[in-house]
Amino acid sequence: MAAGKANSIEIDIARLWRDLETSSRIGPGGAGGLRRLALTDEDKAMRDIFVDWCKSAGCQVRVDAVGNIFARRPGLDGSLPAILIGSHLDTQIAGGRYDGILGVLAGLEVIRTLNDHSVVTRRPIELVSWSNEEGVRFQPPMMGSGVFTGAHDIAWVQAQRDGGDATFAAELERIGYLGSALSCPEHYDSYFELHIEQNDVLDAEGLHVGIVTGGYKSFGLELRVMGENAHSGPTPMRRRRNALVGAALLIAKVNEIGWTHEPEGRTTCSRLTIEPNRYGIIPHLAELTVDLRHPDAEAAQEMYREFRDFVPLAARKANVEIATAKEWSFGDVAFDARLINLVRSVAAELDVSHRHLLSAAGHDAYNIARVIPTVMIFTPCRDGISHNEQEHIEPGYTAPGVNVLLNAVLRRAHAG
Amino acid sequence: MAAGKANSIEIDIARLWRDLETSSRIGPGGAGGLRRLALTDEDKAMRDIFVDWCKSAGCQVRVDAVGNIFARRPGLDGSLPAILIGSHLDTQIAGGRYDGILGVLAGLEVIRTLNDHSVVTRRPIELVSWSNEEGVRFQPPMMGSGVFTGAHDIAWVQAQRDGGDATFAAELERIGYLGSALSCPEHYDSYFELHIEQNDVLDAEGLHVGIVTGGYKSFGLELRVMGENAHSGPTPMRRRRNALVGAALLIAKVNEIGWTHEPEGRTTCSRLTIEPNRYGIIPHLAELTVDLRHPDAEAAQEMYREFRDFVPLAARKANVEIATAKEWSFGDVAFDARLINLVRSVAAELDVSHRHLLSAAGHDAYNIARVIPTVMIFTPCRDGISHNEQEHIEPGYTAPGVNVLLNAVLRRAHAG
Repeated sequence: MAAGKANSIEIDIARLWRDLETSSRIGPGGAGGLRRLALTDEDKAMRDIFVDWCKSAGCQVRVDAVGNIFARRPGLDGSLPAILIGSHLDTQIAGGRYDGILGVLAGLEVIRTLNDHSVVTRRPIELVSWSNEEGVRFQPPMMGSGVFTGAHDIAWVQAQRDGGDATFAAELERIGYLGSALSCPEHYDSYFELHIEQNDVLDAEGLHVGIVTGGYKSFGLELRVMGENAHSGPTPMRRRRNALVGAALLIAKVNEIGWTHEPEGRTTCSRLTIEPNRYGIIPHLAELTVDLRHPDAEAAQEMYREFRDFVPLAARKANVEIATAKEWSFGDVAFDARLINLVRSVAAELDVSHRHLLSAAGHDAYNIARVIPTVMIFTPCRDGISHNEQEHIEPGYTAPGVNVLLNAVLRRAHAG
Repeated sequence: MAAGKANSIEIDIARLWRDLETSSRIGPGGAGGLRRLALTDEDKAMRDIFVDWCKSAGCQVRVDAVGNIFARRPGLDGSLPAILIGSHLDTQIAGGRYDGILGVLAGLEVIRTLNDHSVVTRRPIELVSWSNEEGVRFQPPMMGSGVFTGAHDIAWVQAQRDGGDATFAAELERIGYLGSALSCPEHYDSYFELHIEQNDVLDAEGLHVGIVTGGYKSFGLELRVMGENAHSGPTPMRRRRNALVGAALLIAKVNEIGWTHEPEGRTTCSRLTIEPNRYGIIPHLAELTVDLRHPDAEAAQEMYREFRDFVPLAARKANVEIATAKEWSFGDVAFDARLINLVRSVAAELDVSHRHLLSAAGHDAYNIARVIPTVMIFTPCRDGISHNEQEHIEPGYTAPGVNVLLNAVLRRAHAG
């Protein structure tokens, strides 16, 4: 094997596309996309194949206590902190074929390409597939990376339930991915994550790479609205404690806050459960998830404040109690300036069209950036459609970004 | 057997209470009430016991094509239209022990008491348990009585689904209560339904009997709000088609209409389903049930109009489409003046405290009143709490109403 400096070697886009095709058959959705929720049988099937691929590529594989899978390609100096590349293999309930998956398989393609060219890097390179990025079955999202960085306590995460009785730990064990140890951020030099943009800026501008400089500041809340059962016919309005009315007032307000802060502000209640949710009965319980985002952290804070101020008004108007069951925030990170410069230089050298971007979606990279120098590379997705089975990308405008990833990783892996 | 005129014979309240106790163990809820949804295994178990009881009381039992169970006690002249007494044995998902059940078992107690006293009536007496009054699994509510009167087409009702794949007909057959024929309203002289009040007027005033003169006019609607899936992070407010926002605007408006028309107006959205209802995805579909009621039919119509006028505004504001999947109304009936007078006379003669009332809840009697002279007798329920496992009644204030029912039925059964 020759230990050489990277000089714009190229990935095998056809091989990467075959892996994406294989992935797209594991947990297929009803409309061409994927339904591969974290810790389900489908997630296990994809993890098993991924581990096989990593081993075939000569990597050592290990799993940590939150189910993150690490695949290590040795470097010349095993004592040096490694380069980490990663994303996630789980999907939304009616998700696309590429969200997260492209980033993991692009990392695998980087390793295979280095193997093809018999490149030995100075630093080890590790590929990671983070557990439960989407947060569909278990909340909060970005769980695996959150535990890795110490943002979440492992015992708390393992005890989270999926809405039924299944705990995160029990489900991890059931699918065979409950490791014992935790991984140390100190063992890593830098983190690279490639991801489809999930917005239409690159697609609209005809650019091939977005270099992400940071994220939208995002606040997440889970609220419990507590009222009281009663017959919907005879109970007069004054005696009602209708949890669904409380929830509806919150949802309408959340939407209004988004419009007040548009075009950059975005607000969503994407999830609402109601008890008993039956004809003829005033609901006694509603639980809803609220999401508030803005690229400017202060504006996001203001949106959060507006929402918080409204909660007691909604509670009074609907004659209910409203409690906060969970809260989280992410996105107010700046990615590493040196890594951003590295990616921009590589893109320029490879003649790949590019621009800087902020990410409105949450990514594991937000967590990792708090403990390891981090950068994200976006590739285009058609019309910006994502978290939808219609999510679509093409080899022609995806390969340039993966080549930028490969060559940026290679330079960093050789660097002092 | 002696054929005699009723002279205030009395029911056996202890026997009736034993039957209520037996019923309360079939499909028990988690909090002391019942969960016995129409056409479930629990409904079948209760139907089987009820049929046994009717046969033991000497009745001929038959089941019609919608699963209504009729038990006939012969009269002196079998060619005369019969007296019909009835209510329902199904419950809400977290329902009480008495709603509907008391009316059916009180009718059985009437028949047993006539047997005890060897009374032969001129007219036959029939007891009916109507199918699916509550409308929890299958909508609309009051299905069995609606088919009996011709308000609903039997084929349409049999094809209704329970939210999953089970049709009404298939579930009826599964539990063994799919009869072939329909029953004829022409074969009945009059209909009596005893029911707990489900409101606190009698309880608050310390009265034992409410003579129902009519119902609140009620409008029911099932609406489909159709939007589009998208990622909740990157999608700007202007590009969203959020079905849950459309639904929330409707729910808040429905509540507002109730307050505008209080204290008599009552409005409820008791049921809302959302797709995909997951973290991170803008919902593409919401389905909700709307209920608008007022004792004054014109005011109810005005409430309905206010809601209808708002639907296109909500659709525009949330950038969604809103369609009406189903609609129904009930309650604008006046019960039979002669039967009301009969019940009032009997109550006075038996020295039972009583008053006239309107019913805010829906009852099978509303359907029946369109085709047969009908009257309803209310008995008190504690604090008016109903559609709730805490629903509670006492023998002491229930027996007077059942005795009024017995003696009113007896007079009518002897009358020309």
